[in-house]
Amino acid sequence: MVFDYKLLANNYISSLTPYQPGKPIEELERELGITSAIKLASNENALGPSPKAMLAAQNALLKSHFYPDGGCFLLKQTLAQFLNVATHQLTIGNGSENILEIIMKSYLSDGDAAVISQYAFLTIPLLIKSHGGELIKVSALNYSHDIPGMIAAVTEKTRLIFIVNPNNPTGTYTTDHDLKLLLESIPSNVLVVLDEAYHEYIKKSDYPDTLKLMKTYPNLLITRTFSKVYGLAALRLGYAISSPDIADILNRARLPFNVNSIAAIAAEAAILDQDHVKRTVIMNNEGMKQLEEGLNKLQMDYIPSLGNFITIDVKTNANEVYQKLLHQGVIVRPLIPYEMMTHLRVTIGTTDQNERFLKSLKLVMGK
Amino acid sequence: MVFDYKLLANNYISSLTPYQPGKPIEELERELGITSAIKLASNENALGPSPKAMLAAQNALLKSHFYPDGGCFLLKQTLAQFLNVATHQLTIGNGSENILEIIMKSYLSDGDAAVISQYAFLTIPLLIKSHGGELIKVSALNYSHDIPGMIAAVTEKTRLIFIVNPNNPTGTYTTDHDLKLLLESIPSNVLVVLDEAYHEYIKKSDYPDTLKLMKTYPNLLITRTFSKVYGLAALRLGYAISSPDIADILNRARLPFNVNSIAAIAAEAAILDQDHVKRTVIMNNEGMKQLEEGLNKLQMDYIPSLGNFITIDVKTNANEVYQKLLHQGVIVRPLIPYEMMTHLRVTIGTTDQNERFLKSLKLVMGK
Repeated sequence: MVFDYKLLANNYISSLTPYQPGKPIEELERELGITSAIKLASNENALGPSPKAMLAAQNALLKSHFYPDGGCFLLKQTLAQFLNVATHQLTIGNGSENILEIIMKSYLSDGDAAVISQYAFLTIPLLIKSHGGELIKVSALNYSHDIPGMIAAVTEKTRLIFIVNPNNPTGTYTTDHDLKLLLESIPSNVLVVLDEAYHEYIKKSDYPDTLKLMKTYPNLLITRTFSKVYGLAALRLGYAISSPDIADILNRARLPFNVNSIAAIAAEAAILDQDHVKRTVIMNNEGMKQLEEGLNKLQMDYIPSLGNFITIDVKTNANEVYQKLLHQGVIVRPLIPYEMMTHLRVTIGTTDQNERFLKSLKLVMGK
Repeated sequence: MVFDYKLLANNYISSLTPYQPGKPIEELERELGITSAIKLASNENALGPSPKAMLAAQNALLKSHFYPDGGCFLLKQTLAQFLNVATHQLTIGNGSENILEIIMKSYLSDGDAAVISQYAFLTIPLLIKSHGGELIKVSALNYSHDIPGMIAAVTEKTRLIFIVNPNNPTGTYTTDHDLKLLLESIPSNVLVVLDEAYHEYIKKSDYPDTLKLMKTYPNLLITRTFSKVYGLAALRLGYAISSPDIADILNRARLPFNVNSIAAIAAEAAILDQDHVKRTVIMNNEGMKQLEEGLNKLQMDYIPSLGNFITIDVKTNANEVYQKLLHQGVIVRPLIPYEMMTHLRVTIGTTDQNERFLKSLKLVMGK
């Protein structure tokens, strides 16, 4: 008899459905035998990375044979100064997915509960399940986090609450007022994790200043990334800001060399190049306007978004529209895995990319 | 009352002693105000990375704003062809420490036991503890794995056995005969993980051919790395070879984007540059001879090693010798964390580095 090594695995691992990433450009071009496909599927920065970050990364390659500085000494110095926090409040990770994983490994045990909103970024429920946690999913309100609903879902078993702000893939956000309501209403032994991957894109007076809130609520953790506005998704760098005690725990739970040197050095240079961030945000604002106007002309509904993406209701099977767009060489993201059966998420691209998407959509929708 | 967020953490995380990495060159130079320090402390490749791998990495930087291919399609193709295994037998990780972590996350639960040898690479017991596993440490025999002892330590609770081959930091190895004895003696529901980080350095007829053994023993997993002979430690890339069923589980347990693009692309080019591997192995063999002869002249004891490092018994407090060597600008590794109180581990360097180490050691030991 052959032994079953799938059955032998921890059941919360073997039962996982792997995350479906956006289709890579090379894969589509290989499949269709085409060139010049565009990818608006993974909320990447269409402007690319900061040239200064790339120069730093090139130089860093010369030391590829040395192990990274596991403590990310220089990056933490630069980041702490930029954010006006202490270095011992920081935890650096292999992308913010690694940071989220470290938080769960540290604070979630078999049978503990974690509260998330319906439509929250799919990696979060995936990680909760993979740590044996019980997933409490609270229905969304107009595609947005229902904060009173999430407060009501907290029980004695709850260890973690996740707020994705703005939320991916809906683009909706939780206001300062609602976040304070949450923090005031729950016991302080429940950790509130704010995933702020798109934080740098936002200029809204009622978007919460979480670094300030952390001074009053030490159970607040913030996660951010260099994969979006900083354009370094390939290199994998994310970080957490928290109270020093929580950071001490997270730094014990991480792998000794979880961050590669190239990412750490590129990120340091990227922080110091805020001009590139500004250019990215300007491009995003203009692109968002271009897409909204184009969609209005096509009389198509979308969810107003604060991120570098917009989610469109195509009012028909999203997968079919997605497939037709692929044949136009345009990769977007159907939201079937979120049970949003008629929605497509589209990343804001360059002016030309946005134009090409709108033309392809018009054609595909027969408008 | 201020809430204690350290106490709130899972106790197998908060009780961890973080891994102490080798001291970075920059740190020593900063502290002592010196330049031209050398580091023989982390078993890095003194020859550096393959120039072809670096060229590939430079080109890969141009796409830094795109997410990596989570499935590492191209790297797996190249690696599978090189190893003569199937792509679905491979799991790619953020260094082999990430691979070890994924194995434990998949196959170790709270209260399960894992068997290791005394003096096994310290990251392994650290990871076992951080997954709530019970650590069964079997005393070494002449600094080597005691295979009959490890067999005897297996109980119904045992899920994993780790064999580091050759072992870091002792350089000793487990023979084909002993490994077969182990595999024949234990139940097939116990997974045997062979950490072969230094595999490429070895030309010994009785060193086990684990890829061949895997065909008979599907409970065998092999982990390897690009941090040693391939000289890509900064980039973080390791991999596992296993049966397809185990690989399926490990690929569910990994993060969606656990491997950065630069590492994947550099590794692919590095595999194709086996000339660089050959040059590295020749340099290592010559350097090992140089160090052995130098140590013989100084009448100092060492443990014969199959890796790219050698462990020396200084017969006095290793930490004091380490400190004195630091003041000579030479960084090595005292093995106090392994409870080897009079041993120093020294990486094989270039001819000049080896010479400088021997001179400094002579001076420091008053020989």
